[in-house]
Amino acid sequence: MRYLNLLLLVIPVSIFLHLLNYSPVLLFLSACLSIIPLSGYMGKATEEIAIYVGPRAGGLLNATFGNAAELIITFFALKAGLVEVVKASITGSIIGNLLLVLGLSMLIGGFKFKSQKFNRAAAGMHTSMLLLAVTGLIIPAVFLHTHANPAAEPLSLGVAGILIIVYILSLIFSLHTHKDVFRPSQESSDSPKWSKLKTMTILLIATLFVVIESEFLVEGIDPVVNTLGISELFIGVIVIPIIGNAAEHSTSILMALKNKMDISLEIAIGSSTQIALFVAPLLVFVGYIIGQPLDLLFTSYELIVIIMGTVSTAVISLDGRSNWLEGAQLLGAYLIMALAFIFV
Amino acid sequence: MRYLNLLLLVIPVSIFLHLLNYSPVLLFLSACLSIIPLSGYMGKATEEIAIYVGPRAGGLLNATFGNAAELIITFFALKAGLVEVVKASITGSIIGNLLLVLGLSMLIGGFKFKSQKFNRAAAGMHTSMLLLAVTGLIIPAVFLHTHANPAAEPLSLGVAGILIIVYILSLIFSLHTHKDVFRPSQESSDSPKWSKLKTMTILLIATLFVVIESEFLVEGIDPVVNTLGISELFIGVIVIPIIGNAAEHSTSILMALKNKMDISLEIAIGSSTQIALFVAPLLVFVGYIIGQPLDLLFTSYELIVIIMGTVSTAVISLDGRSNWLEGAQLLGAYLIMALAFIFV
Amino acid sequence: MRYLNLLLLVIPVSIFLHLLNYSPVLLFLSACLSIIPLSGYMGKATEEIAIYVGPRAGGLLNATFGNAAELIITFFALKAGLVEVVKASITGSIIGNLLLVLGLSMLIGGFKFKSQKFNRAAAGMHTSMLLLAVTGLIIPAVFLHTHANPAAEPLSLGVAGILIIVYILSLIFSLHTHKDVFRPSQESSDSPKWSKLKTMTILLIATLFVVIESEFLVEGIDPVVNTLGISELFIGVIVIPIIGNAAEHSTSILMALKNKMDISLEIAIGSSTQIALFVAPLLVFVGYIIGQPLDLLFTSYELIVIIMGTVSTAVISLDGRSNWLEGAQLLGAYLIMALAFIFV
Repeated sequence: MRYLNLLLLVIPVSIFLHLLNYSPVLLFLSACLSIIPLSGYMGKATEEIAIYVGPRAGGLLNATFGNAAELIITFFALKAGLVEVVKASITGSIIGNLLLVLGLSMLIGGFKFKSQKFNRAAAGMHTSMLLLAVTGLIIPAVFLHTHANPAAEPLSLGVAGILIIVYILSLIFSLHTHKDVFRPSQESSDSPKWSKLKTMTILLIATLFVVIESEFLVEGIDPVVNTLGISELFIGVIVIPIIGNAAEHSTSILMALKNKMDISLEIAIGSSTQIALFVAPLLVFVGYIIGQPLDLLFTSYELIVIIMGTVSTAVISLDGRSNWLEGAQLLGAYLIMALAFIFV
Repeated sequence: MRYLNLLLLVIPVSIFLHLLNYSPVLLFLSACLSIIPLSGYMGKATEEIAIYVGPRAGGLLNATFGNAAELIITFFALKAGLVEVVKASITGSIIGNLLLVLGLSMLIGGFKFKSQKFNRAAAGMHTSMLLLAVTGLIIPAVFLHTHANPAAEPLSLGVAGILIIVYILSLIFSLHTHKDVFRPSQESSDSPKWSKLKTMTILLIATLFVVIESEFLVEGIDPVVNTLGISELFIGVIVIPIIGNAAEHSTSILMALKNKMDISLEIAIGSSTQIALFVAPLLVFVGYIIGQPLDLLFTSYELIVIIMGTVSTAVISLDGRSNWLEGAQLLGAYLIMALAFIFV
Repeated sequence: MRYLNLLLLVIPVSIFLHLLNYSPVLLFLSACLSIIPLSGYMGKATEEIAIYVGPRAGGLLNATFGNAAELIITFFALKAGLVEVVKASITGSIIGNLLLVLGLSMLIGGFKFKSQKFNRAAAGMHTSMLLLAVTGLIIPAVFLHTHANPAAEPLSLGVAGILIIVYILSLIFSLHTHKDVFRPSQESSDSPKWSKLKTMTILLIATLFVVIESEFLVEGIDPVVNTLGISELFIGVIVIPIIGNAAEHSTSILMALKNKMDISLEIAIGSSTQIALFVAPLLVFVGYIIGQPLDLLFTSYELIVIIMGTVSTAVISLDGRSNWLEGAQLLGAYLIMALAFIFV
């Protein structure tokens, strides 16, 4: 986290580049770099507030704003009409969390510990929730691929509604009726490190700058595609998910190094579930309201990538143990999937 | 069950409508409603006879006539040349049992009991049999989608033959070589409630009326599609499976309320397996004989729906526990799949 | 094994047929038959050398030359430009090992023992490695189906590179960092049965004749396709994998009859993993070098067959027990898949 703070210095550079209207490619790069520490501060501040407001409201808060940075970036991308980028970044977030984050955590944790254990029952519960979330996300795509497309909008809205209801039910389950099943994660049970005023100020400023930098980033996508020959898909699937979740990723790896694989799994799988059940449907509604309809019509490749990422995670986590080879295998799968996008 | 008996009063209404040749839409609706209690009586009578003839012949009887009502409806639909309706109802029966019935059982049972346990080993055995049954069902479809179609008929017949042989082997397994593994289900171990004569009479009359009402129902499909704008697919995937299995469904929910989740799982998964291994192949042979060839060429959407339904059930049932959220998730998946068919 | 030796008598027949340039169909058949015992001797000799050089180098040897006969056959098929046959035989080897070999082992073992146990943890580890191997293999195919094909060659090379790196990592894992996790298999812990000289001589002669017979076999493919009406796909998916692995298959069944299901599973799943992680990528590189580019563009049908075979094996092996019905189900799935290829 501390080293990432150095990236805050890139913020003035990006603003300068924007004002000078100099190089959109450099603007894009500086926006990417500056979002990394900012999204980290947003996440940290949200966790602090969660401690102040108590476990239930705090759980709700984390559940709603856990992927806030990504939500902001994809909102501006959607506003700019980059629908394919948004869908690619939903795909990329899900597999990034499952394969890249979990893979790195298991690999690096596995270098330190020969075999790392985690709670099979909890992992199973998270995995089954993820699987059903993913099912909900892919069903309309498969249907729309094989049938008439005029129905894309009403169907996407209906499915988004059902997914958000299931998400609300899962919050009622974990925060109310079955809250004892989910052991409190170590971090949130800590006492707050920042004062209330400091927390709110940090959250406000970080969010403000994420908004600004997200606009810069989206502005720079077209020039980057035209100048560097990188595809929109690559930016959506690889770049946006990595910068939007970088801080979260480093937490997952740190926990693996402390042999707390349960938390690593919770971060990786929980974040993917949140994308599928909350972020994606929310973007469907937002797109409908702002007149940039986002159908859930993922490409066959996105579908297969999501399914294989989910199934791989399920199989790896079912035995309640991890080692460096499992991490390397997940990373290998991620690299193969990422490689494909370079050749688009 | 008792409330469902009131629906028997709809039988004379449907006959009246048929004789007057009045409204085919009302005829369709009345036929649907009257099949619900009739299929319940057929199932109950089959179980009674199973008790009289002893466990082995009884098991065979239940295995063969467990989905008799549905077999009769789909037979008449096939005879009328509604091949797509028949294939849709095979899909709908499989996911209806896995997602709707099991989902409702877990949801309603979960409202009463915080966590419900069931035998993991038995659930695993049923699930793996279901998975292999489903594999058999989808392989020819995938093959025929990607290769020449002229082979659809001989291939479908060959696959149907293999599936039925596996079904017969599974009966030998459960009723002969490994009968001790399958604990007798509570109901069939009860003593009979009806006399032999009463049982046979009820079975005969119920079957007779199911046959009549099935003809009415099939007769009404075209008018309903044209008048109400409901698609044939929707009738096949949603309507026919629900009315054909309604009585069975209520048993599954009742068992969940009695905390006997093992029986709920057995009904839901067992019935799906039976559809895939017995009903579907039988219809292929029947279609060949009556000159209405039924290939196993399911649409991509039907295939994905069947696969995701099976995998979801497998993941949910692998941990040997259920709760209301898992039920809600299965129901959510069912609603999303059903929603898609409304927009066809 | 002993009865298979009789097939060695077919070798002179095949050479005779080749010299006389008599019947290419008979040449094909005799080449097929003679490869069966030869590949058995190659495997046996490799195992003997593995004992002489010690566990680590021996493990490496088995891992590299375990599928040597198949590698030789597919090399000559590739050299002759029969790219589709090579891809089909990769598919066929994977499902042949998973469904045919494991199915037969469970079926025949299950006739002798009511229920056979095996190590769940080890089976789970093999299965998850297989799943990730298969993921790597299918991702490029799915991608290339939905996007532009010009990228097929560089993408296939890149993916092949990643797969081979993962394979090397898995060898480091099993032979170095976690060698204690993998219990030594019974055979390799035995003392050598042949002298060093005898072993080397047998290996040399067997390899030489496999090379000769593979050329005969490949030479005969076109005539067989034209004369007998058997498709290239059928030869690739069914014939080549069966003759290339026949000796290995008989070992797996023998182990099942000795109630050593762990070894049967290891042979079947391990061999499939080796095909996906080592043989397939190696053929990509070889094809590139000899100017017969082999993309990893499997057909949709091949993909589904590989996925369903893998998932079926995973589900069957997750409970740590097998019985004859599970064997029959795997065989049923194999027959259905094979049946489809007859109708091409």
